[in-house]
Amino acid sequence: MEYETIRYEVSDRILTLTLDRPDQLNAFTVRMAEELVDAFGRAGADDDVAAIVVTGSGRAFCAGMDLSASGNVFGLDESLRPTPDELRERLDDPEILHGVRDTGGRVSLAIYACTKPVIAAINGPAVGIGATMTLPMDVRLASEKARIGFVFGKLGIVPEACSSWFLPRIVGISRALEWTYSADILSAAEAHEGGLVRQVLPPDELLPAAYALAAKFTTDRSPVATALTRQLMYRNSAQPHPLEAHLSDSLAMFYTSIGDGKEGVQAFREKRKPHFGGRASHDVPDVFPTAD
Amino acid sequence: MEYETIRYEVSDRILTLTLDRPDQLNAFTVRMAEELVDAFGRAGADDDVAAIVVTGSGRAFCAGMDLSASGNVFGLDESLRPTPDELRERLDDPEILHGVRDTGGRVSLAIYACTKPVIAAINGPAVGIGATMTLPMDVRLASEKARIGFVFGKLGIVPEACSSWFLPRIVGISRALEWTYSADILSAAEAHEGGLVRQVLPPDELLPAAYALAAKFTTDRSPVATALTRQLMYRNSAQPHPLEAHLSDSLAMFYTSIGDGKEGVQAFREKRKPHFGGRASHDVPDVFPTAD
Amino acid sequence: MEYETIRYEVSDRILTLTLDRPDQLNAFTVRMAEELVDAFGRAGADDDVAAIVVTGSGRAFCAGMDLSASGNVFGLDESLRPTPDELRERLDDPEILHGVRDTGGRVSLAIYACTKPVIAAINGPAVGIGATMTLPMDVRLASEKARIGFVFGKLGIVPEACSSWFLPRIVGISRALEWTYSADILSAAEAHEGGLVRQVLPPDELLPAAYALAAKFTTDRSPVATALTRQLMYRNSAQPHPLEAHLSDSLAMFYTSIGDGKEGVQAFREKRKPHFGGRASHDVPDVFPTAD
Repeated sequence: MEYETIRYEVSDRILTLTLDRPDQLNAFTVRMAEELVDAFGRAGADDDVAAIVVTGSGRAFCAGMDLSASGNVFGLDESLRPTPDELRERLDDPEILHGVRDTGGRVSLAIYACTKPVIAAINGPAVGIGATMTLPMDVRLASEKARIGFVFGKLGIVPEACSSWFLPRIVGISRALEWTYSADILSAAEAHEGGLVRQVLPPDELLPAAYALAAKFTTDRSPVATALTRQLMYRNSAQPHPLEAHLSDSLAMFYTSIGDGKEGVQAFREKRKPHFGGRASHDVPDVFPTAD
Repeated sequence: MEYETIRYEVSDRILTLTLDRPDQLNAFTVRMAEELVDAFGRAGADDDVAAIVVTGSGRAFCAGMDLSASGNVFGLDESLRPTPDELRERLDDPEILHGVRDTGGRVSLAIYACTKPVIAAINGPAVGIGATMTLPMDVRLASEKARIGFVFGKLGIVPEACSSWFLPRIVGISRALEWTYSADILSAAEAHEGGLVRQVLPPDELLPAAYALAAKFTTDRSPVATALTRQLMYRNSAQPHPLEAHLSDSLAMFYTSIGDGKEGVQAFREKRKPHFGGRASHDVPDVFPTAD
Repeated sequence: MEYETIRYEVSDRILTLTLDRPDQLNAFTVRMAEELVDAFGRAGADDDVAAIVVTGSGRAFCAGMDLSASGNVFGLDESLRPTPDELRERLDDPEILHGVRDTGGRVSLAIYACTKPVIAAINGPAVGIGATMTLPMDVRLASEKARIGFVFGKLGIVPEACSSWFLPRIVGISRALEWTYSADILSAAEAHEGGLVRQVLPPDELLPAAYALAAKFTTDRSPVATALTRQLMYRNSAQPHPLEAHLSDSLAMFYTSIGDGKEGVQAFREKRKPHFGGRASHDVPDVFPTAD
């Protein structure tokens, strides 16, 4: 897939995904959604990518859905009126996929499925889908110039992109409701105070901080253990009983301990750096029960 | 239903529900539970109500279950001894409903099911059910005179009103256990520090702050989008997989984008205030799969 | 079971479990796991134990898995290669139990199942399983000398001991990912700032504070109500709908209100201390549906 709305650049094993419609403040389109889904899938399969940093080109991170288009900006087919059960059954039916399913949510599910750490470097305004797309990213860093707004309520629509799953897990249910009801534009400091953003930085220190964190997450690490750690944390924290976590982390520990863990323990004993051979593309075992 | 223990007053589209047994510090009774269940259902169906503020009459918010009555203050029928599976099967059987089910929990489920934002204005002591009934409310504001106590342990009973579902989601599992084990009476500052209370205010600024927040949540908002936002946040944040959120928020986005969202986008383009026509009483689509 | 790696000491109804291999910085072994599983089961059944404090002997809390042994330090049988579904089906099959299942996870499940409040008194380094074993404990207190590290990534393995269930519930998903990706050794202050540790204390004030908290949690308390409170909080907070909480807390309230709650209300009315007769060993009713 040729990208028109984003840039995909790998350097030092870190992929930078840049939302790249600076003249439109990187406003989100259906095309951008499809490119992001493709890019996160591609990055997961690419062993030259150890971690991902997402940022925006120019002065904005992402100004939200591009409302400048004429007609139905959400790309939905109004003649379709599925029930919840129909939607579930016909999930990947092209008519439903393109005519009903939320494009932001498809991006969020692609980020959720990704096997690499993902860091949001929020360089400026992140509004609507520009805010919710950062929620399935693992850590959010923000420039002092960042502004974050879950503004859907002002438009008579609902927060999307699986934000009702992610946002309460990050900031708690009460703050999630307050921010979505109010539709306020939050300063970087407010977002930090509420637990959405890990750190607020001067503009020119944002990307260096994101890259430093990405390097810390990946240098001398097993891509297999990192991929499993990401999956275990998201999936198991949402299970109704810790036994579910025990089943999958037992298997993840079993397979890593007879895989890269052997080299890890050996290197620890020999007081040297480890050299891990496992690849995220091929060597991540399936540790989750079928029903999952 | 004629209310004897609460007041139901609507002004400027904000419903104030006042716990109104001031001589008994608004102590909770089975009658008050039934009136609250009725009032939250009525408010959900009343399109003249955009948001709800809950407070107490006089110097207390609610001093807990009224223990002054003689006999079994919990209103339970001791001859019934259901198993968990029997309880589930006979949930709405009057014998089980009135003889076994926790009255506080019935209030919490009514608040959970409500389609309007709910703000607790905790004006004074909120103890036992007076504390747990505030948990399914979306935001808690407290007077400096508020005192909050999950005091059940002192009476040899357990925290109720679905508080084991709500409290850990608001303050985390560790703080929830600490507060219920200790049965301490928390100051407003302690409750704020622990994340239970959003803001602590001088007594005479409490209700104005609650009304200001309610106005912010509802002015120029679509009641349909607000109702869906509330449902999506509570339901989806507790699902085991974000795909569940994607299904329901896709539908919520679909139906709002061909409903009030059209006016919202149009008004945004025309730089004017939106005029939403959807009603919470009739126009909220069903977006959750049957099994839910 | 005779303990070789831990000490089990009861005083004033508080059990102190001390990890007791001080010359190895209390490094974790399969033997220690089996002793801890036994000890938490024993404590749950022992009515002379009202609460549990866990600490380490000497200068460390627990330096993690003992990597000094030769061969497969994880005690796993490499010839077994179960799928997730096989693992679930053969969970208690001795071959799977000893050859595949994570030993740390077996300890975590034993702590989860315990009916008594559990307080971690982290006196020094707590690394790897030394960190993750504290997560199913209810409150963590730390000495200023504590250092906490989820260091698995450095060894090419994954966080275990059901930590993917517990850690995000305690510190949020974002911090959980950051700490496990980075594998950093956290200072006590950092662990406190992130919400993992409730309080940081000078070394000689750590155990007194843990005992004071344990006393506060258990003095004049019904062991039955306390056991149910612990179960309700952990189980219900992870359920997809508050109705599940309503079912089990209704039953817990029903059975305690016709049990120790009678004495509790009577003592409250008579303004005297309660004398509860219920025993955690025999009087905790089953309040969870079978499917749970």
